[in-house]
Amino acid sequence: MKNITILGSTGSIGTSALKVIEAKKEEFNVLGISGYSNFELLKEQIEKFNPKYICIGDENKAKELESIYPEKIIYFGDEGLKTMGALDEADIVLTAISGAVGIEATVEAIKKEKRIALANKETMVAAGEYINKLLKDYPKAEIIPVDSEHSALFQSMQGSSKDEVKTLIITASGGTFRGKKLEELKDVTVEQALKHPNWSMGRKITIDSSTLVNKGLEVIEAHMLFNIDYDNIEVLVHPQSIIHSMVEFEDSSIIAQIGVPDMKLPIQYAFTYPKREASSELERLNLRKLKELTFDEVDSEVFKGVDLAFKAGRTGKTMPCVFNSANEVAVELFLKGKIKFLEIYEIIEKAMQQHEVKEIDSLEVIKDVDKETRKWVYSNYARD
Amino acid sequence: MKNITILGSTGSIGTSALKVIEAKKEEFNVLGISGYSNFELLKEQIEKFNPKYICIGDENKAKELESIYPEKIIYFGDEGLKTMGALDEADIVLTAISGAVGIEATVEAIKKEKRIALANKETMVAAGEYINKLLKDYPKAEIIPVDSEHSALFQSMQGSSKDEVKTLIITASGGTFRGKKLEELKDVTVEQALKHPNWSMGRKITIDSSTLVNKGLEVIEAHMLFNIDYDNIEVLVHPQSIIHSMVEFEDSSIIAQIGVPDMKLPIQYAFTYPKREASSELERLNLRKLKELTFDEVDSEVFKGVDLAFKAGRTGKTMPCVFNSANEVAVELFLKGKIKFLEIYEIIEKAMQQHEVKEIDSLEVIKDVDKETRKWVYSNYARD
Repeated sequence: MKNITILGSTGSIGTSALKVIEAKKEEFNVLGISGYSNFELLKEQIEKFNPKYICIGDENKAKELESIYPEKIIYFGDEGLKTMGALDEADIVLTAISGAVGIEATVEAIKKEKRIALANKETMVAAGEYINKLLKDYPKAEIIPVDSEHSALFQSMQGSSKDEVKTLIITASGGTFRGKKLEELKDVTVEQALKHPNWSMGRKITIDSSTLVNKGLEVIEAHMLFNIDYDNIEVLVHPQSIIHSMVEFEDSSIIAQIGVPDMKLPIQYAFTYPKREASSELERLNLRKLKELTFDEVDSEVFKGVDLAFKAGRTGKTMPCVFNSANEVAVELFLKGKIKFLEIYEIIEKAMQQHEVKEIDSLEVIKDVDKETRKWVYSNYARD
Repeated sequence: MKNITILGSTGSIGTSALKVIEAKKEEFNVLGISGYSNFELLKEQIEKFNPKYICIGDENKAKELESIYPEKIIYFGDEGLKTMGALDEADIVLTAISGAVGIEATVEAIKKEKRIALANKETMVAAGEYINKLLKDYPKAEIIPVDSEHSALFQSMQGSSKDEVKTLIITASGGTFRGKKLEELKDVTVEQALKHPNWSMGRKITIDSSTLVNKGLEVIEAHMLFNIDYDNIEVLVHPQSIIHSMVEFEDSSIIAQIGVPDMKLPIQYAFTYPKREASSELERLNLRKLKELTFDEVDSEVFKGVDLAFKAGRTGKTMPCVFNSANEVAVELFLKGKIKFLEIYEIIEKAMQQHEVKEIDSLEVIKDVDKETRKWVYSNYARD
């Protein structure tokens, strides 16, 4: 029986993870779950999965949970999440929470040499250089990517050695606005941006998909996870989201991972790796029905998310953190109707321009840069 | 330095193998080559690669070679090929000759526990049950498939265990006549049948590709090589021949091997396995340029090659040998203009119907069934 802690159990990844676990109860036990503010769903999950540890964002809500479940161990807030990342009994920690606290919880899990099923992009984007140093000090800790693209790259590399990898080819659906011209994107609404063709995801990530910033974050994450030079990472538009990514090797052979667009597969793979297991929750792909897979270039003139990420990634140090933090605030402002869609790019670009790059010698540096960047964006773009 | 013997050096696979070797002279040495009747090309290859051992079909031609190259060791005929398969100094034996003698040479190489880069379909189709028993007695012998489909399956399985494989998905270009109806195939000419859209191959295999008998042979070969039940092998039409085959695993994840249609990659992989190496001979695939990959069902009403193979494979024992031998004669008769295209299926089907299945307890059984089947087809279909 493997004990699993799910940080972010009420989100899209978290609920998928619970489905994966429910289908394999004999194998996986939910040790702990954390939710931020969705109190009702968290209670449902507690009833159903009976976790020993629970964490919630707000202290008062934590007290309420304590009165309902007196036998449970309840934590709250950022400190609670860090504690949840370091539970001794855990075999696997799924980090499916966004933001800086996700990094800190992941760091705690690394220090306890856990398997980390990583679904927190910030960890490798903002703090990748720090995390990679840390992994050298805790060699038994392992990070298995949960993002469908990175899981696909990881799966495609199995059985080969890293020095045989020539190129990582990250596929991109192209997002809601694929094929659109700059002029057409000037006045798009939040509702239009939230319609993703293939994946059902959270609001933030759906916007990131439509700007291709998401793909940019994945480029940086891939660089950090697999230690592959930016010159050897490519993004390929593939609207059907069936080939989840590919690895080209030194001999020009390409290995691709293919499947239905469903996060339950990469989540389960991160839990069962290096084994693969059947599950009633995992749907088979029928290529006969599919008929065709298409490919295209990224239109970098319109969708600047990928190029900006390459720029941030190549600069390195604190710059990817700025790219990520500026984007987070920009998307928040867009979702609140405070800025226009294309201003997301402007915000990221200007935030990067004004930033003075620093070495990441502690997590504090990342937290400071994150705060400064957010502050800079708010003060310059949060119109009322 | 690895010593390589190439059985069938003047054929399509053999000449590609020599290009692979030429590009990596510091790593591979041509120990021996064999040609059947292409004397001039064989001489060219001798001059260029300076092999220690040479084999040719005809005894008189062997004597001629001896007089030109007195320092070389020259063999001839079927016995010569068997000797060539068993050369002590060889590290790798590439079996790129067709017919029953290919099986015997492979058997010799297995008994010497060599690595066999297998490009002789008959070995696993006609004699698969026998070969698999033999491999248990010679556990250090290893067969690395060279056929692009089986190499793709083999590559896609690296890093996973065999019991995690759910389905082998063998892709098929669909051949020259893809999309044609029965009526349209009644009177097709040899020239029409010899035009293959993607692969440049020998005449026999190009016809086999147009009948999909080739794909049927590959189904049986895949069953024998990977020990996967026929119920878990599928054929998928994929006209671009870019995805060379795929493996679906227990968790519904599909791993595919992708690349330009060029036999040099699977040949080199069989030589360098488990490593992958860069080579000036190996061309990169540009998916951006490719634009699309399509998929379709096999039209089994028209192209009976696959269904007939499944039938032969499921019957097992000597039946796959009959399927293969009947097809070889049928194609020969078609190429000579003695039968019509669709009669190839009729010949295979009737040859299978009249055959009484036997256990394969020795290679003699295979040789006898091969002879009997050929005789039966000739006597019934070789009109003058």
